[in-house]
Amino acid sequence: MLKVLSCSSTPLSYFLQPKACLELQRDGIQMHAVAGRYTKISARELEHVNKYPNAEVISLGIGDTTQPIPDLIASAMSDYARSLSTPEGYKGYGDEQGNKALRKAIAQTCYRDLAVKDTEVFVSDGSQCDISRVQMLLGSNVTIAVQDPSFPAYIDSSVIMGQAGDFQYNSGKYRNIEYMKCGPPNHFFPDLSNTLRTDIIFFCSPNNPTGHAASREQLEQLVEFAKQNGSIIVYDSAYAAYITDESPRSIYEIPGAREVAIEVSSFSKSAGFTGVRLGWTVVPEELLYSNGFPVGHDFNRIICTCFNGASNIAQAGGLACLSPEGVRAMFSVVDYYKENAQILLDTFASLGLKTHGGVNAPYVWVHFPGERSWDVFNEILGKTNIITVPGSGFGPGGEEFIRVTAFGNRETILEASTRLKSLFP
Amino acid sequence: MLKVLSCSSTPLSYFLQPKACLELQRDGIQMHAVAGRYTKISARELEHVNKYPNAEVISLGIGDTTQPIPDLIASAMSDYARSLSTPEGYKGYGDEQGNKALRKAIAQTCYRDLAVKDTEVFVSDGSQCDISRVQMLLGSNVTIAVQDPSFPAYIDSSVIMGQAGDFQYNSGKYRNIEYMKCGPPNHFFPDLSNTLRTDIIFFCSPNNPTGHAASREQLEQLVEFAKQNGSIIVYDSAYAAYITDESPRSIYEIPGAREVAIEVSSFSKSAGFTGVRLGWTVVPEELLYSNGFPVGHDFNRIICTCFNGASNIAQAGGLACLSPEGVRAMFSVVDYYKENAQILLDTFASLGLKTHGGVNAPYVWVHFPGERSWDVFNEILGKTNIITVPGSGFGPGGEEFIRVTAFGNRETILEASTRLKSLFP
Repeated sequence: MLKVLSCSSTPLSYFLQPKACLELQRDGIQMHAVAGRYTKISARELEHVNKYPNAEVISLGIGDTTQPIPDLIASAMSDYARSLSTPEGYKGYGDEQGNKALRKAIAQTCYRDLAVKDTEVFVSDGSQCDISRVQMLLGSNVTIAVQDPSFPAYIDSSVIMGQAGDFQYNSGKYRNIEYMKCGPPNHFFPDLSNTLRTDIIFFCSPNNPTGHAASREQLEQLVEFAKQNGSIIVYDSAYAAYITDESPRSIYEIPGAREVAIEVSSFSKSAGFTGVRLGWTVVPEELLYSNGFPVGHDFNRIICTCFNGASNIAQAGGLACLSPEGVRAMFSVVDYYKENAQILLDTFASLGLKTHGGVNAPYVWVHFPGERSWDVFNEILGKTNIITVPGSGFGPGGEEFIRVTAFGNRETILEASTRLKSLFP
Repeated sequence: MLKVLSCSSTPLSYFLQPKACLELQRDGIQMHAVAGRYTKISARELEHVNKYPNAEVISLGIGDTTQPIPDLIASAMSDYARSLSTPEGYKGYGDEQGNKALRKAIAQTCYRDLAVKDTEVFVSDGSQCDISRVQMLLGSNVTIAVQDPSFPAYIDSSVIMGQAGDFQYNSGKYRNIEYMKCGPPNHFFPDLSNTLRTDIIFFCSPNNPTGHAASREQLEQLVEFAKQNGSIIVYDSAYAAYITDESPRSIYEIPGAREVAIEVSSFSKSAGFTGVRLGWTVVPEELLYSNGFPVGHDFNRIICTCFNGASNIAQAGGLACLSPEGVRAMFSVVDYYKENAQILLDTFASLGLKTHGGVNAPYVWVHFPGERSWDVFNEILGKTNIITVPGSGFGPGGEEFIRVTAFGNRETILEASTRLKSLFP
């Protein structure tokens, strides 16, 4: 054991162990770790399988892609990898910000007509990683707001950075975080007139877990709110490819957003790159600190210091994704998952349950009024051998809900549908 | 421009812009960004090329690999990428800590007989990225020590985390960082009797830029020093594959190191993965905070929250690297670079210049007593069209030195040798 290791500079921590992580360790109730780890769910699954060794468990839990990467995209990566063994094809360090052709393709394909410049696009190894880098940029002295429920990485990274304050067991909330409740009563959009001003607003649309894509009017309100408060929106558009209706696919569709918003996005859920790891972040030139200094310059320093670029093989795949054929191929996979989502929506509807999401997102958010989400989880697992995600893992506003994912094979989804129908006949 | 965005919780920063990055912006003299960015060097190169458009510039600057990846390793990645387009071969999210087979291979191949467990190995996208994650784990309230000179990422990330304190122009040092001078007079090992106690000691061996591999006796002193002070050593062994003599290849060769040291390492310089991005960090179970809590548990939380695993394609390459044939293939490339280093050593020796490194590292550290390293850089560039790295970019202790890299094609190295000999006939 280390002898001293005391942090004399702060009376708050009498040993080196970061307070942030202590928080996480203590946190036996909340399942903030839901997105990447599903620790508690895995434990429950393991327990279940040990008890029923012959159970054929179906997972509608973690939002992990299952369908093969379209051939032309996988081939681009395969060819690139092979070329690395040749003198002509070998490449060492690339630009930390991503290769120029890919940055250009992202700007032109994902932000067509939105005036996003190549130089405003920073290629990354995925949006979860970029969220942490944004947190590192912001430091521990900022205040944040999150949708409730929301993807847990915003809060998890905030806790690690020391922004969150104490966890309050009564409310299931961290003291310093502003939870913006988003549920059916407010059309999944926060009541901004009752929302505290914070430095940063994390906003995910289409939302994970609710599947709600914010409307243009809602996003206009959000941008206006950020402007009035001098806040930065960190807009997570990882599921934008799933938008079916006229909801904006990017925050930059909203006039004025370039002055207040960073956008974080990903190839994970559109191209099936969850394991390949590729994403990006846009920091517009007009986004300035209050002294007029561009936020993008600082983000560039973070990227150059704390990151050394995404794998060049993954970037070759990203470039293939954004070719006209690649885009078509990606969307055919997205359509497959959306058909899965429709099957799940129909299933729950036939059971008389109220659902949300599933149209603009690969997640269906199912309401069980008056029930605890862990109880619902346990009941479904016990009776159908299906893993879901209890809504409370996404924040206290997720109570009474479960999230089911459409990222499955069709047969699995159909089998799940059959089992669910038998559960609630 | 954002209207308010003030950080009311701290009087030090009257707007949101992180102090850390302000520091970096102000930092016009020091070239801390040397390793990944080489901004100032690039600017000088550009200026030179604009002035002499016909100059055939040779770079012995950035430590970037140039030789193709051995075929069996590139093929493993290529095959893996192609298999992602098949139902059988497709993989989504992997374990954030890395795939089990690779963790096992690293433990067994890179730490043979050193009792490193698979579960203590965290696979990453490179050691520079892991250094930042270690910094995120530690937070802003720790004190750090670095070798002077050293790889700039330790200080850069420390500045961003807010550990460094003010930059002092007189000394070229950050106020709160302990600079452990390592030069020829002390055999490139700090005088520990005059070293302040810090929470963290960054130690790179073989060192970038000096090329010095610490001896067993030196590392025994370092481990003992850390034990006595309750400090954690963050040991960077990214260049371990270059060790020719009996110097330890891992800090864990030193008894007691498991209680005080994290080891950060990489496939970049051994397998030519600078662009592919793959590395790892070892956090031994015996490494505990002063309250007995394992540091590895917290690091695991950082990995799961701020990282989503290295690209699975890169991991397939890492696994191929560690097969018996892969190891042989890697070392044949390492040997090639070491032959380059010998050519450079001989070149400078023939000019009567004192050199260090080059035997256990791909870098040669050349001494120009009494001269400023930027003057030497400018003179060499002006007269031979060769880019080097001024030693002062690695800290004030690098003054009077330049670093040259052996990561080149043989013809380039030979041409550089010819030009250098003509410069100092």
